This record gives sequence, structure tokens and C-alpha cells, in this order.
Amino acid sequence: MSEDYTSMWEGLGLDLAGHDALLEVLGNGYQDIYLAQKNRPEGMGYFDFVMSEVHGLRIKELLDEKAAGRKVIGSFCVFVPEEIVRAADATLVGLCTGADFAMDEVEKLLPRNTCSLIKSAFGFKLGKVCPYLETSDMIVGENTCDGKKKSYETLSTLVPNLYVMDLPQVKSAEARALMKAEYLRFKGAVEELTGITIDAARLKKGIEIVNNKRKAIYRLSNLRKADPAPISGLDALLANQIFFYDNPVRFTESVNKMCDELEKRIEKKEGVFPEKAPRILISGCPMAVPNWKLPWVIETSGAVIVGEESCVGERGTRNLTDDNWDTEEELMEAIVDRYFKVDCAIFTPNPDRLEHIEEMVKTCKADGIIHYGLQFCQPYLMESIPLEKALEEKNIPTLRIETDYSMEDVGQLKTRVEAFVEMIK
Amino acid sequence: MSEDYTSMWEGLGLDLAGHDALLEVLGNGYQDIYLAQKNRPEGMGYFDFVMSEVHGLRIKELLDEKAAGRKVIGSFCVFVPEEIVRAADATLVGLCTGADFAMDEVEKLLPRNTCSLIKSAFGFKLGKVCPYLETSDMIVGENTCDGKKKSYETLSTLVPNLYVMDLPQVKSAEARALMKAEYLRFKGAVEELTGITIDAARLKKGIEIVNNKRKAIYRLSNLRKADPAPISGLDALLANQIFFYDNPVRFTESVNKMCDELEKRIEKKEGVFPEKAPRILISGCPMAVPNWKLPWVIETSGAVIVGEESCVGERGTRNLTDDNWDTEEELMEAIVDRYFKVDCAIFTPNPDRLEHIEEMVKTCKADGIIHYGLQFCQPYLMESIPLEKALEEKNIPTLRIETDYSMEDVGQLKTRVEAFVEMIK
Repeated sequence: MSEDYTSMWEGLGLDLAGHDALLEVLGNGYQDIYLAQKNRPEGMGYFDFVMSEVHGLRIKELLDEKAAGRKVIGSFCVFVPEEIVRAADATLVGLCTGADFAMDEVEKLLPRNTCSLIKSAFGFKLGKVCPYLETSDMIVGENTCDGKKKSYETLSTLVPNLYVMDLPQVKSAEARALMKAEYLRFKGAVEELTGITIDAARLKKGIEIVNNKRKAIYRLSNLRKADPAPISGLDALLANQIFFYDNPVRFTESVNKMCDELEKRIEKKEGVFPEKAPRILISGCPMAVPNWKLPWVIETSGAVIVGEESCVGERGTRNLTDDNWDTEEELMEAIVDRYFKVDCAIFTPNPDRLEHIEEMVKTCKADGIIHYGLQFCQPYLMESIPLEKALEEKNIPTLRIETDYSMEDVGQLKTRVEAFVEMIK
Repeated sequence: MSEDYTSMWEGLGLDLAGHDALLEVLGNGYQDIYLAQKNRPEGMGYFDFVMSEVHGLRIKELLDEKAAGRKVIGSFCVFVPEEIVRAADATLVGLCTGADFAMDEVEKLLPRNTCSLIKSAFGFKLGKVCPYLETSDMIVGENTCDGKKKSYETLSTLVPNLYVMDLPQVKSAEARALMKAEYLRFKGAVEELTGITIDAARLKKGIEIVNNKRKAIYRLSNLRKADPAPISGLDALLANQIFFYDNPVRFTESVNKMCDELEKRIEKKEGVFPEKAPRILISGCPMAVPNWKLPWVIETSGAVIVGEESCVGERGTRNLTDDNWDTEEELMEAIVDRYFKVDCAIFTPNPDRLEHIEEMVKTCKADGIIHYGLQFCQPYLMESIPLEKALEEKNIPTLRIETDYSMEDVGQLKTRVEAFVEMIK
């Protein structure tokens, strides 16, 4: 890190010893998994820098924004509409998860059989090691899965500023009405927090900023269709992860700049893996920083990841919000339309997801799919079984992985993934 | 059983060998757990008979109803409004679950980490041993927990007549509107199935029948407040379980008749356990026939169960539907009001449940609570942790049990329950 941020972290109430330990593990993991890769695009230098400063300079920026009267809102889910946050000049950040921390404390509050993502979010709070959470003026929970829904009842006793958004479970007219009512309620809460009245002009601006970010990451996705792939799946995942943390305008510029470079690579047929390397699509649960275990296992097994059908990936970013409207009412409808399309496994039924996977397999020229399910994540684990069956029926090789954030199963994962890669070669 | 029902079961497509095996296990379990009890009320004779004919005479009755043009609707949840079913002269039955069956087949369709209740329901279908399911003209699923919600997507490929009802997750105005829309849609579906238009008079009649059933079972609950308890928890649980299967009018009469007997017992201070026996309230997940493991462990450990805060118990039955209305619209509102009050753990937050438990502890004069959580049931397991904390803070001893339908943990359960009973003596 470029500076000594000790006093900043102290001011946020972080546990300095625990936080140092976390940063060391994170730094070592990043070295071993990311910096050890060969032939990375130069544009990844920006993302390496962001990661090196993810608890440093970026937090300082957020605190500077707060000092200037702006607000920071933390979230755990792609259903929290960033357009509305941005329309109030506030910043939306993804909250820490992705690694086991303070598990002894966590398991006093949550059942052992809770998915790693939720346990990890609690661990970062209980261990006092998430500067994003401590910086947030409002933390937004959402009724997606049972695990998150019910754990927010406990989280509300640990943080003073939890706001819970209800979400529908089906795609009916009544369910959409519920979602719209909740987005309007959220808009009101953001207005109250920021003191800013969100009008049509502000909504349009918010939509523009977030759409541009999505367009940039979608441009990156498209470039990965080339063979050889011009960027590793690990690096592309990192960009998708930083999507949730970075200043959106700067992020958009940085992704676009890297895409310019990747286009040149494609022209020259320059890639990070040999041409004809087995191409894998990852589908399933989101992967938050520093949850790089499975992609690392895949890309050290001779395959290249060419797409993520995930909330940290295309599921979260593929749809734009239609800004071709003038009134606040119309723009809010457009925002609801956009998010109501998200094909998360919390919806029943959820046929769009299978369609999207099939489409991605074609456009990414994937040779097979690895379904990433977090242990105890009922929506994705349940959905993965019929999904695998449907894909196998269309002769798309599929490997279902169920794992957590621990490193205990790395050897076993490697064996299974290597066998799968061998099969689809 | 009084007759040979082989041809009836064959006609329903049951697997006769598997079904025979099931009935044998069920019969032996009933003998060991129920008939081995001492000093049972005479009125239990009726329920013993119902249980002995649960796959026999009762199915014949349902088939006779069908032959006479009436319909049978199967459900897995207390959120399916029986009033509406009854208003169309149809019969609502609870579908089989409560025991492991065909687990190898089940685990090809559902994740291993799915709760026993859901796996069991699938096992009864895949093993072809649930005559209720095969008799049903319509099977109603409902979006309660993630496990049920997502597993219905697969169940819909196994049965030709699944209808899925959406349900809300919070108790807001929009959530109630969603529930009302879904109940109206269900009313339409029942009308279509039965060919009967449900008017106000029919709704009033349906409400009356179901309310009477609830009043009878609630009368039974009240009599258990006496010390010594005039009936065992096992027997009372059985009545609560048969609530879901039996002809409602006959059931109501039988419960009331037994209550007359229990009142006499109370006058004479006659009980099934000695006076001052430790009194336990069970709270948590529902217990379907033949899931009697935990109550059996408790009542063979010197304690008496004096109440069930459960869907198969007071949570499912305590509220009546207000029939003091005249129009169809008003009566439907009253039905929605009634079900919207149910304090199931799928709601967030769910403060009414804690209140109700505290109230039951007082009225039942319980010495302690045993929380029954099915492994992988996220809503109840998650809720049980803050619940235990809140109860312990009020000096109400609480034991949290997490188990499944297997018998492997009986020894361990017995040790834990005996220690708890010793503590609250």
C-alpha cells in the first residue's frame, strides 16, 4: 500500500491485528494466484493497483466523499439498484465476504450449516476487518435466499444502520408490483439519508453512469470470445469483482482502456492460453474477493475460463436500464424492469437462466460448464440438478462442484477439474 | 386394517411391496411408541383406528368422494386455505412425509443437504407409497422456504397436477396484497377444478367447518394445561397430525368427545404422568406422521409435552377465520387476514412467534422448551438462535435440537434430553 493507513483503520474501529493478518493473507494469495500468471494484459496494472489499495486508498476516497457531505451505501446483492444510489450522489459498495474470518464467533450467531458467503459477511463484521462496512452510512440487506433473509434479523443487532429490502420470488404482475413498491421505498430512504430529492434528471444521470460501467464490462466479456482468449478468467473475474468497489467512472475508463489493448491482442492472435485450450464457462453462485479458489484450480488445470454466469459476472451486469424516458415515474419503471429480469435462482421457476447459459456457451464457444455451488446455498444447489440434466441432454458437458471458502478440498477439486478438462479436450 | 385394500392400492399405482414394507414399519412404530403408552384416554381409540386405516379406509372414503364427483386436493403446508377447498365441497389432505423412503432415488433429484421433510415427500412419490398423493386431483405447493420453493420445480416433472402458490416474506401492505391475489387465484383454480362457483354462502360454510375443527383442537390444547396432564404429548400430537387427514366434521366430533373425557380426568386429577412431572413445550419445525422420534424420546425421559408451537400444533391452528361477514369479498379478506397472521419462520422479522412461545410457556405452565429444528431447515434453524437467547434471558430453559428422520441419533438425543429434563426438574 502506498501509505500508512493505520490511523484511518483505527478511526473506523477495525481490529488492527486481525486486519493486518487478513491483508497479509490477501496479499500472499494475490501474489500466488494473480501475479504468478503469465502474459497478463498491461491494463490489469490498474486492477492490481486497485486491489493493492482496496482497504487503503479506496477507503480514503470514500471517507473524503463522506467529508464532502456525500453518503456511502453498502450492499450484499445485485438487486440493490445502484442507479438510485448514484442519482443521490451517493456511492454503492459491495460489502466484504469471500473468506472465512472469526468463524468461532460467527457460529455462535448462525447455524453451522449456513453458506460461506453469509458466514463470511458476519465474520468480517464480528472480526472488525471490513472497512467498507464500517464506512457505510446505510447497509442494505435484501430478502433473497432464506439464509440472507433470516440472518439479517441478527445482523440488525450488530450494525446500527441496516435497511432491509423485500424482494419477490416469482415473475408475476403482483410480484413486480411488490418490487416496484420496494424500489420506491428505497428511493425514499436514499433521499432521506442524503437529503437529496431524486428527480428525473438525477435518475437519468445515475442510469447513465451505471449503464456505462455495464457496457464496459460487457465489452470485456465479448472480447473473451476470441480464441486464444486475450485475458485469463481470473483477471476478468477480478474486473467483475472490482465493479462492486471502484469509482464507477474511473472503473469504466479503465476497463475500456484494457479492452482497447485486448482488441490489439486479438488482432495479433495473442492470448494467455494456447489456442484450442479447453474453454470453460462458470455458472452458479457469486465469487467475491478473495474467493478465487475454483477459478485458480481451473486455470492451473490447462483450461481457460471464458465467461461467468454469476452475479459477479454476466447475470449481474448483462442487462442495461432503458434510459429512453423523461419522467421520474417512467425512469423508475425502467429500473424495475431491468432488475426484474435478473435470472437469480431465488426466482421460481427461473427458465431464463438455462437459456442464458446456453446462449453463453454458444457465444463464448465454451467446451463445458462448471457449476459452482456454495455448500448450503439451497437456491443454486437445487437449481443445479435440473440444470445439469438439461445441459447434458444438449450435449454440453457439465461438472457440478459444491464447495465452501476453506482450502481443505483444493486437492480433491483439482482432481475432479483435471478429469473434466481432460474429458472435454 | 379391516379389509384387503390391495386392489385399491394397485389401482392408485402404488408399489405394493414397498408399500407393504412401509405399513409394517409404521405399524411396528405405532405399537412401540403409541400403544405401549399407559393410561391413555379411551377417546384415543378413535385416533388409533384412524391411524390403522390411514392408508386404507380413509383412502377408500376419498375415492368414494371422487366417484361422487368431489375433488381431493393435497398440500404440504398450513398456508393452503382449507376454507376455500371446503367451500367447493372438496377435501384437503396433507401429503405424506415424516419418514425416509427411497432416499437413493431422492438424492438424484435433490441435494443431499435438503431437509428431511422435503426429501421424504419426494421419497413417498418416487417410491410410489403415498396413496394421498396418488388420490389428489390437485397438488398445491407454496413458496415458503427455499427448499420447498425450488424443489417444486422438480416435483412438477414428477406429478401432472402441481399448482404452486406464491407467498410473501414480510408482513407489509404490498406483501398482504400479494397473498390476497394468490388466494383469489387459488379460489379460481379450485372453482375450475371442481366446476363449483364459490359464493359467500359456500365460503361461510367452509369457514364454519374449518373453524370448528380448530376450536376442537384448541379445546384439547387448553385441557393440557392441567397438572397432571390428562393426555400425553404423543397422543395430542397424533390428534394434531390427523387434523390434516381426516374427515373434518367427524374429526371435530371425535376430538370434542375425547375432550369431554379429559375434563372428567382433570376433575379427578387423573393424568398420564405423575403430578409435577417436568412439563415441556415443543417449538419449531412441523412433525408429520410418523415423525414421532423426538416426542417419544422426551416422554420416555420422564417429562410430559404440554404443547406444540408448530404448524402441526398451535401455530397452524390457533387463529380462527372471522366469519362475521356477508359478502364474498369480505369473507375472502377475512381468510387472508387469518393466514397472514401465521407466525412461520419464513417471515422476516417474525416477532409474533417469540411472543406466542412466551404466552404458551405461561398458559401451559411449561418448565422448559425444546426447539425442534430439522437439519438444513434454514428458516427455523436461523430463528432458533436468537429465540433461544431471548428465552434464556427470560429464564426459560431452552434446548435446541437439530435432527433428521433417521434413527441414528436416538441415543445421543436421549442423553441430551434426559440431561435437560434433569435440569428443569
